[in-house]
Amino acid sequence: MNSSMVRYVLGQVLKIEAALLLLPCAVAVIYRENQGYWYLAVAFICFVLACLMTIKKPTADVFYLKEGCVATALSWVLLSFFGALPFVLTREIPDFTDAFFETVSGFTTTGASILSDVESLSHCSLMWRSFTHWIGGMGVLVFLLAVIPLSGGSNINLMRAESPGPSVGKLVPKIKYTARILYLIYFGMTIIEIIFLIAGKMPVFDAFAISFGTAGTGGFGIKNDSLAGYSSYIQWVVTIFMILFGVNFNAYYFIVFRYFKKAFCMEEVRYYFIVIAVAIAVVFFEILDTASGAADALKHSAFQVGSIITTTGFSTVDFNLWSQPAKTVLVLLMFVGACAGSTGGGIKVSRFVVLIKTVIKEFNSYLHPKGIKKIKMDDKPVEHEVVRAINVYFITFMLLFSASVFFISFEGKDLITNFTAVAATINNIGPGLELVGPVQNFGCFNVFSKYILIFDMLAGRLELFPLLLLFYPPMWRDTIEYQRRRRKA
Amino acid sequence: MNSSMVRYVLGQVLKIEAALLLLPCAVAVIYRENQGYWYLAVAFICFVLACLMTIKKPTADVFYLKEGCVATALSWVLLSFFGALPFVLTREIPDFTDAFFETVSGFTTTGASILSDVESLSHCSLMWRSFTHWIGGMGVLVFLLAVIPLSGGSNINLMRAESPGPSVGKLVPKIKYTARILYLIYFGMTIIEIIFLIAGKMPVFDAFAISFGTAGTGGFGIKNDSLAGYSSYIQWVVTIFMILFGVNFNAYYFIVFRYFKKAFCMEEVRYYFIVIAVAIAVVFFEILDTASGAADALKHSAFQVGSIITTTGFSTVDFNLWSQPAKTVLVLLMFVGACAGSTGGGIKVSRFVVLIKTVIKEFNSYLHPKGIKKIKMDDKPVEHEVVRAINVYFITFMLLFSASVFFISFEGKDLITNFTAVAATINNIGPGLELVGPVQNFGCFNVFSKYILIFDMLAGRLELFPLLLLFYPPMWRDTIEYQRRRRKA
Repeated sequence: MNSSMVRYVLGQVLKIEAALLLLPCAVAVIYRENQGYWYLAVAFICFVLACLMTIKKPTADVFYLKEGCVATALSWVLLSFFGALPFVLTREIPDFTDAFFETVSGFTTTGASILSDVESLSHCSLMWRSFTHWIGGMGVLVFLLAVIPLSGGSNINLMRAESPGPSVGKLVPKIKYTARILYLIYFGMTIIEIIFLIAGKMPVFDAFAISFGTAGTGGFGIKNDSLAGYSSYIQWVVTIFMILFGVNFNAYYFIVFRYFKKAFCMEEVRYYFIVIAVAIAVVFFEILDTASGAADALKHSAFQVGSIITTTGFSTVDFNLWSQPAKTVLVLLMFVGACAGSTGGGIKVSRFVVLIKTVIKEFNSYLHPKGIKKIKMDDKPVEHEVVRAINVYFITFMLLFSASVFFISFEGKDLITNFTAVAATINNIGPGLELVGPVQNFGCFNVFSKYILIFDMLAGRLELFPLLLLFYPPMWRDTIEYQRRRRKA
Repeated sequence: MNSSMVRYVLGQVLKIEAALLLLPCAVAVIYRENQGYWYLAVAFICFVLACLMTIKKPTADVFYLKEGCVATALSWVLLSFFGALPFVLTREIPDFTDAFFETVSGFTTTGASILSDVESLSHCSLMWRSFTHWIGGMGVLVFLLAVIPLSGGSNINLMRAESPGPSVGKLVPKIKYTARILYLIYFGMTIIEIIFLIAGKMPVFDAFAISFGTAGTGGFGIKNDSLAGYSSYIQWVVTIFMILFGVNFNAYYFIVFRYFKKAFCMEEVRYYFIVIAVAIAVVFFEILDTASGAADALKHSAFQVGSIITTTGFSTVDFNLWSQPAKTVLVLLMFVGACAGSTGGGIKVSRFVVLIKTVIKEFNSYLHPKGIKKIKMDDKPVEHEVVRAINVYFITFMLLFSASVFFISFEGKDLITNFTAVAATINNIGPGLELVGPVQNFGCFNVFSKYILIFDMLAGRLELFPLLLLFYPPMWRDTIEYQRRRRKA
């Protein structure tokens, strides 16, 4: 383990966080809120610490996948730790576990809150909450790669550990430029949403906060009723942008560079829209009776389906009160998730496409045991290694899921609450059903369960392995062994 | 598709069913019940039909895995269809769907009943219900192979399609003798259980019925309170035998032929007992407060854990009233299931062992990308093909599971009922939670949901692919194509 390099990366991440914390400070200046001083103080601490950590350049630049994973996992924990401090210091979320939960939920773009009254927060804290979504959506290490050149094999291994989806697509040969293009598209789309929202007479502050939440597919609202109180126009704009941010960003890259054919032939994106259309149709007919008219039913079904499949987690109605089939559709969508290479969470559409193709291939192998063809995606054969990785991902996901449900069951809450609480956190969605439904919050869990759910949020956002690796003893044995040998040499 | 061979196998299966139906006839004679005539009539119909189907020997003896699957799936449907007729004709279960559900539940060793008052059934019908468990446990085609020699590659392909577990173990080179040995062990252990039960002053009729249900890991009781009314001695005997019938039968083969070392080194069996021990411990401490003493708590926890992990489904208490962690343990055990090569259902311990080893291998590949070793089981490397098949099995299982929960959700029942109803049928257990809890029954579902659950029971028992293949259009296209070509030739 090249720990000096890991330290260096962590230092750089802290520097970025120091810079990011200036946004809530600015908001505090505008709204003349005293809480801003605390944000400034934490930014200062981060900066000083970051300087200390990066003062010594790393000696070796060996940086394998293992280091990439560890650096990524620790970065996210560190980010969340320092991101939580202002909440504690301003006494707006006095309990550290709660503040940590809220910040992890922010950075991982989950949007599960422990607050029962978000409207009581100061503007700067509300903005910081929403801003963490925006940072977490595309990934802070991707940002790091876009601005700071790292040596050796660091780049791809960091990107691989942080990017959602089964395979990392380098859009252009240089990782640095790939990261920059991604952030530019991301930034551009966020701006467009803000403009659309302001055009719909949304207050500027709200437009920024909600757009950050949509772009990162996060889901922290700034009102107690999430988005229920806004106009239909605003709700439709958010619906459309949620769905757009769930699309594989490669598609936008293709569109920007005018490879239209490539963009519209992406199998994953096609299936993504088909799933959305079918889900909206089912939910629409299920809620038609109780809604006030077809337009209303369509609006609510599209919003909720878009919100859940993209793992955003905003809501305009209490879908916990919906009929059983409608709720079941939402629970299933929680696992499907958005496209790979988007800001959304979940298992990802492309993984499911490959999984289903694997099953069909199995059927064919019963019919023609000797003539088995490779699975294809976008007309290109999917490498055996990718299929294997997806299988392992799915299995690990299910095992972690079951273990989490088991651990939080000790609190004695009902099975649906436990099941959907884990589903909503590991898939980075936000609301679940029953006690964690859209009009409820996660404050009801005890400290132990909260840490389990924090773990799930981080594991879900980092696609399991980078985080789980931290808890795999042989990794630390190897590291200690390596350090001992270096000291001897 | 060699359909003449499939027809011939189906005919043989019907002949066996005709013979099996004589057991309830005998019971009817003893108890002087008129219902016996109907059993005799159905046996006669089966026999005549079987003779017609087997009068013409198959022309070709080509018999691939495809034919094996189709023959197996159709056999089970046919068996259940004719097995259900006596219930309808005696008017004891007048509705055909209900009778079919009950019979499929019997043959697949699920034990989920639609009856609210089993005690009102005649003795011959009760015995037939329990006897279907015994037949279904080891498999009717395995029985067929034990008694009737089939030509060509038929044997292994039939056995492969019907036997539970990831790989078919031929104990001895000849399938025929393997099948006979399995049935002998099965028969012997059933007799021993009957003796133990009668020694505990259980009525002879009850001892037979309960032993059939235990041996097949079925779970149909003959009392409305399942096994709650029997003595502690009887409950302990059943507990122990349930757990024993969930062990891989290869272990017994090794013991009978004095390969003790081999028997005690079986990794799957070791993990099976570890899981049972841990689960009993958790449940024990959870129910200790509400039980009348430690002995009582131990008895109930051991019974319920043994019943669920082996997918038997007997009960001595209403575990739906247990605490949340205890219930969650049971729900998780539903999926674990028994050992491969036992009469139990579920995903199987060995599959989970391989799945977990796959995940650990993945961790190691992060640490040492170049030095990846094959997964080992019982100190032998597991072939890549087996690992792949297990992965695909797990994925198919989860997809079928989700689809089933979605389909039955249209009835509007709560999510826990739907979730555990599907879990209890696809894993061939019997009782679930809430509306399908141990003191409830499956009669509350509508016809559509019942057929979904019937499908799940069959799919679960036949390890998914043989049944699902029937619904894969290309298979029928191939078959029609083949017939057309043969007719031309």
